[in-house]
Amino acid sequence: MSATTRTADGPVGVAPGGDGPAQARVRAAYARLAQVDRPEVWTLLLPQAQVLAAAARVDDRLAAGEHLPLAGTTLAVKDNVDVAGLPTTAGCPSFATDPRGRPGPAAVTAPAVQALLDAGAVVLGKTNLDQFATGLVGTRSPYGAVRHATLPGRISGGSSSGSAVAVALGVADVGIATDTAGSGRVPAAFHGLVGIKTTVGLVPTEGVVPACASYDVVTTLTRDLETGVRATRLMVDAARDAGPTRRGWPADVRVALPDAPVVAVPRADDLTSLSPSWRAAFDAAVARARDVGARTVEVDVSGMLAAARLLYDGAIVAERYAAVGGFLQTHPADADPTVAAIVLAGADVPAAAYVRDRAALDAARDAALGLLDGCDLLLLPTTTEHPTLAEVAADPVGVNKRLGTYTNFVNLLDLAAVAVPAGEAAGGPFGVTVLARAFDDQLALDLAARLLTGASGSPAAGAPAADAPLVVSGTVELLVVGAHLRGQPLQHELSALGARFARTAHTSDAYRLLALPTSPRKPGLVRVGPGQGTTIAGEVWRLASGALGAFLATLPAPMTLGPVDLADGSRVVGFGCTAQAAAEGFDVTDAGGWLAALDRGLVPR
Amino acid sequence: MSATTRTADGPVGVAPGGDGPAQARVRAAYARLAQVDRPEVWTLLLPQAQVLAAAARVDDRLAAGEHLPLAGTTLAVKDNVDVAGLPTTAGCPSFATDPRGRPGPAAVTAPAVQALLDAGAVVLGKTNLDQFATGLVGTRSPYGAVRHATLPGRISGGSSSGSAVAVALGVADVGIATDTAGSGRVPAAFHGLVGIKTTVGLVPTEGVVPACASYDVVTTLTRDLETGVRATRLMVDAARDAGPTRRGWPADVRVALPDAPVVAVPRADDLTSLSPSWRAAFDAAVARARDVGARTVEVDVSGMLAAARLLYDGAIVAERYAAVGGFLQTHPADADPTVAAIVLAGADVPAAAYVRDRAALDAARDAALGLLDGCDLLLLPTTTEHPTLAEVAADPVGVNKRLGTYTNFVNLLDLAAVAVPAGEAAGGPFGVTVLARAFDDQLALDLAARLLTGASGSPAAGAPAADAPLVVSGTVELLVVGAHLRGQPLQHELSALGARFARTAHTSDAYRLLALPTSPRKPGLVRVGPGQGTTIAGEVWRLASGALGAFLATLPAPMTLGPVDLADGSRVVGFGCTAQAAAEGFDVTDAGGWLAALDRGLVPR
Repeated sequence: MSATTRTADGPVGVAPGGDGPAQARVRAAYARLAQVDRPEVWTLLLPQAQVLAAAARVDDRLAAGEHLPLAGTTLAVKDNVDVAGLPTTAGCPSFATDPRGRPGPAAVTAPAVQALLDAGAVVLGKTNLDQFATGLVGTRSPYGAVRHATLPGRISGGSSSGSAVAVALGVADVGIATDTAGSGRVPAAFHGLVGIKTTVGLVPTEGVVPACASYDVVTTLTRDLETGVRATRLMVDAARDAGPTRRGWPADVRVALPDAPVVAVPRADDLTSLSPSWRAAFDAAVARARDVGARTVEVDVSGMLAAARLLYDGAIVAERYAAVGGFLQTHPADADPTVAAIVLAGADVPAAAYVRDRAALDAARDAALGLLDGCDLLLLPTTTEHPTLAEVAADPVGVNKRLGTYTNFVNLLDLAAVAVPAGEAAGGPFGVTVLARAFDDQLALDLAARLLTGASGSPAAGAPAADAPLVVSGTVELLVVGAHLRGQPLQHELSALGARFARTAHTSDAYRLLALPTSPRKPGLVRVGPGQGTTIAGEVWRLASGALGAFLATLPAPMTLGPVDLADGSRVVGFGCTAQAAAEGFDVTDAGGWLAALDRGLVPR
Repeated sequence: MSATTRTADGPVGVAPGGDGPAQARVRAAYARLAQVDRPEVWTLLLPQAQVLAAAARVDDRLAAGEHLPLAGTTLAVKDNVDVAGLPTTAGCPSFATDPRGRPGPAAVTAPAVQALLDAGAVVLGKTNLDQFATGLVGTRSPYGAVRHATLPGRISGGSSSGSAVAVALGVADVGIATDTAGSGRVPAAFHGLVGIKTTVGLVPTEGVVPACASYDVVTTLTRDLETGVRATRLMVDAARDAGPTRRGWPADVRVALPDAPVVAVPRADDLTSLSPSWRAAFDAAVARARDVGARTVEVDVSGMLAAARLLYDGAIVAERYAAVGGFLQTHPADADPTVAAIVLAGADVPAAAYVRDRAALDAARDAALGLLDGCDLLLLPTTTEHPTLAEVAADPVGVNKRLGTYTNFVNLLDLAAVAVPAGEAAGGPFGVTVLARAFDDQLALDLAARLLTGASGSPAAGAPAADAPLVVSGTVELLVVGAHLRGQPLQHELSALGARFARTAHTSDAYRLLALPTSPRKPGLVRVGPGQGTTIAGEVWRLASGALGAFLATLPAPMTLGPVDLADGSRVVGFGCTAQAAAEGFDVTDAGGWLAALDRGLVPR
C-alpha cells in the first residue's frame, strides 16, 4: 500500500474532480485487497494513489457526459499483456530487462486492454502467471505459486492464475487473461468464474507476449457473464482498426441460440478421467442443459481429445520456442525449469514436422466439425480434477497434461469457448465449458447464460434478458408485427437465420394494421401518417446484415421491408405490404397488434 | 495416337449415342493434335477412342436435356492433379509407383476437375510440368523440356508447361494448372493466355500433389477469359461440399469493379528488372488501364517483392519437403536434380524458423494491404523476360528466380490474381497480372475483361457484357427503377456495396410508377395487379446478400423493398414505396419508366 492510501470512505485528495463512482470502486478494491493478503497474485500492484488518479480522470469524463460502459471497472492484467509504463515480465523478471526479452516498460498498452481503458476501466496492476503462459497450474512462477482463492492447499489453476484469484477474491472486476491451451478456462473452473475465450483472431494480440502465437487469445475472467461479455465485445471491436488482415464477424454471423438448441455431449468413454463426484457434477450440468431447452446428443469426442496432444507433444511447441526460446537459451536464473524444458524442446523440431502437424490439425478440425454437424454447440467439463499444490509439485507435467484434457484442443481446432460455473463437486467449484464453431461465440454465450440463470430460451418460459449485451457488434434491427412474432408460424425463419429477439416495441401512431388474405395469415402494416393511425405492437429482432439480405431475398409477395418509425422515436427496418394487398385486407388496427387481433377473433379465417 | 484414332471427319464407331457436339469437339482436338507433333506436352495422352466414348456420354446427357455448361470442353490436366484411373506422376514417373509417392492409378478424380467433368468437360490427358510443380520454366522434367508453343528456342514457362502449350496450340480448351509461385501465370504470359488464380483456399486442393500446401491453388489456362471464369466458378462451387473448414465467398463479397476503379501500379524503381521493350509494353498496359476507366496511382511494391524471397530462400520451403521430401530422399533416378536440391534443402529447416517466416508473411500481408488502402486493384507485369531454353540450362535457378519476381509473393500475401495477355514485346506475347485482395477475385476479372476488350466499365461507354459469367455464385438480384439506375444520383450507393449491373428489365404489367416528393427525386413503384398497370423499365443489379441487407438497413423512407414480378415471369427483389407516399406522388406510369418520365419533363421539380 502506498503512502497515499485512503480508506474507502476517506476524503478525496489525490484525485481531481471529486469522489465519483470510479474512484469509489477503486477505494473498495484496495480495501478488499488489504483484507485478503495475497501478494503472490501480483507481479506489480500499482499504488492506490496512482489508480485513484486514473479513476478521477474517468469520473471527470463521466461528469463531462461521456458514455463509459466500464466506468470504474477494475482490471487485473496478466503480466504477459502490455500496459504502457509498466514492465512486462511474462512471469520471468529478467524478461523485462534482457535484450532478448522486452526490456524496459511497455511503450503502448495492448489494444485489447486499451479498449477497456477507453471505456472507463482502470488497471490495478499486473498479475502472476505460469511463466510465459505455459501451464494450467499457476505454480510455475518465480513470483510464487498462486494459491487458490478459498481452498487451502489447492492450486489456483493457470496460466492466468493471478487474474483469476484477483477476481475470485472480489478485488478486481475483470481479470485479463490469455488462453492458448485453457489458461483462461481452467482457473475459471476452479474459482466459479466465467471465462470467455472467443474465436482465435477476433481479439487483437498486439502487445501480448506470445505463448503459441497461432493460437493465443486474450480472454476475460469475471464473476458474472454480463461483465465478461461487455468487456469482450469492446476487445473484439478494438480489432477493427488493428489491421486489415484481422478476423472479424462474418456478414452472416448467427447472433442467437435457437430456443431448442442441439447440444453435443461426450460419451461415457470420453469422461473416464473424471472422478465419480466430478462425473456426477457433469451429468448434472448436462441435465441442466436439457432443463433449459437443449436437446443433447452424444458424440465421440475422442478425436478432439487426441488432437489436444499435438499442442505440447507435437511440433506445434516450436511456436513457443520461436517466441521466447532465444531468451530462455541464455539460461536466466529466474526461468521456471518446467517451462524452460517445454519451450527449449521446441528448438529441435524440424519445420517439416510442424507442417505435417498443422495439416493434421486441419484434418482434425474438419473431423470435429463433421462430428458437430447438426449440433449447435458442444458441452464439456472444463477440466478433470482440482489438484493440490503438493500433487502438482510431485508431477508437474503429468498433472498439467490431465488438466488440459478438455481444453488443449479447443484453439487448435478453431472453436470458441465459454467456461461457466456449474455447481460444486468434491467440496469445490465445478465448471463446464460451452464450445461453439468459429464465430458462433454468441451461441455459446447464450447457452452459458441459460445454464447460469436456469432460464430456458423458449418464449413461453421467458427468454434471457433482452438487454443483455451481445458480443457481436454491427448487427441490424428488424421489426416484425405478424407471422414472425414469437409463437407465430413463421418465427422459425428468423431463428434459422440466427436472428435474436431483442425487445417488444410499438410503432409510432402513423400506422394501420390489415389482416391479409395470405396463408399463413399475416398482417400488413400500412403507414398512414403521424396521428392518422395507432401504435401497433411488434417485436424487434436483431440479425446480421447478411441474414437480413437473405431474408429479404426470399420474402414472399405481398410483403415488403422498409423503414418503420417506432413509438420511441427511433426508426428500424420493418415489415410492410403492398398497397394492393392492404386494400384487400381487413382492418384490425383497433386491436393494436396482431396477437390481440387473433385473440379477439378479428382475423378472418 | 491409338489404333482407334479417327479423323475429325470420320465415322462414329467407338462412341454410342451419335456424333453429337461433344464428340465433334474431341475429334477436332485430336485432329489438331496430329498436326502439332508435340509429344513432350503430355505425360499421358488418352487414346482418342476413350475420350470419344466419354464425349458420347456427354452427348447422351445433352440429348437427355441436361444443362451442361462445359459440354465437350476439352481438358489438359496437369499431372500433379488426380484423374481417376490414371497415374499421377507429378513429373516423376517413379512417384506413381514408389510406395512413398502415389503408387497406382488415382482412385478418385480431384474435386476441382470432377466439377468440370460433371458439367460436360472431357479429359484429353495428363500434362508435363516442372517436376513437383517446382519451377517457372517448364524444363525441369524427365518427360522433356516443354518448348514454347510457337517461338522456337524459348521456354514454355512452368510449372504448368504442358497444360499451357496444349491450350496455346488449340488442342485443349482448358488447361488445368496449379499455381503456388506463378505456375499458372508465367506460362500464360508467355503464350498470350488467360490464367485465373483465385484466392487461396477457394478451389479444393484434394487430389492434388502438394507443392507448398498452404499456398497451392488449382487454376485455369484458357484462350479467352469467359471460358476460364466459367470453369473456375464450377471449381470454386465444388468446394461447397468438400469440407466445413473450406474458405468460401464472404456474405458481403464485392461482385463488381467500380466504373472508375483505383488501380495501383508499381514505381519505376520496382520495374528495373524489365528490358526496355518489356517496360514499354507494361507502360502501354498501364495506359490501357486508364483508357478503360481506371485511375492509376503509383505505390511502392518493393516490400511485396521482398516477401517473394521467403518462398524459396526462406523456411517455407519446408512445406515442399513435407510433401515429397520422403520420396525424394530415396534418390529416384528420374528426379530432376534442380527440383530435388530445392526440396531436400527443406529437410534441415527448424520449425521455429518456419514459424518466424510465417509471422513475417503475416506482417508483410498487413503492409501490402495497407499500401493498397484506397485502391481496388494492383496491376503488375506477369514476369520479367522470356528466356531461351539455353539460358535456363545455363542458370536454372537464377533465371527461375527472376521469372518469379512479380508472382512469387502473391499467394504468400493472400492476393487473387488474373494473368491476361497485353500485346507483344520483343517479338513475343507480353502479359500483365491484375491482383486483388482476398475474395475480390471478381474485381480482378472485371479489370482483366476491360483490358482484353478495351471496353470501359462506365455506363456511358457501354459496360462489359452483362451476361458474362461471374466467378462468384450465391448472389441475389435487385430491381431498381429510379434514383439507383445507371447515371442517376444514387447509383453510387450500389457501387459502394460492390453491386453489379446485370441487365435492363421490365416489370410485369401489374405496376404503376409515381414521382414522389423526395430529394433527390425518386419514383415509387406501386403494384396494382396484373393487367392493371403497365410494364415499367428498370435495371437488375446483382449483389451479395450481406450487401443487400446493408442496403436495406439504410434505406430511407418512404422506400420499401420486396418481391417484384418481371415481364419475363421471374420475380426479384425490387423497390417499392409506402402507399401513403404513392398517394402523394404524381403518376408517370404512361412514360413506362423513370428515365423516360424525366426525359419528357413529366416529373415535377
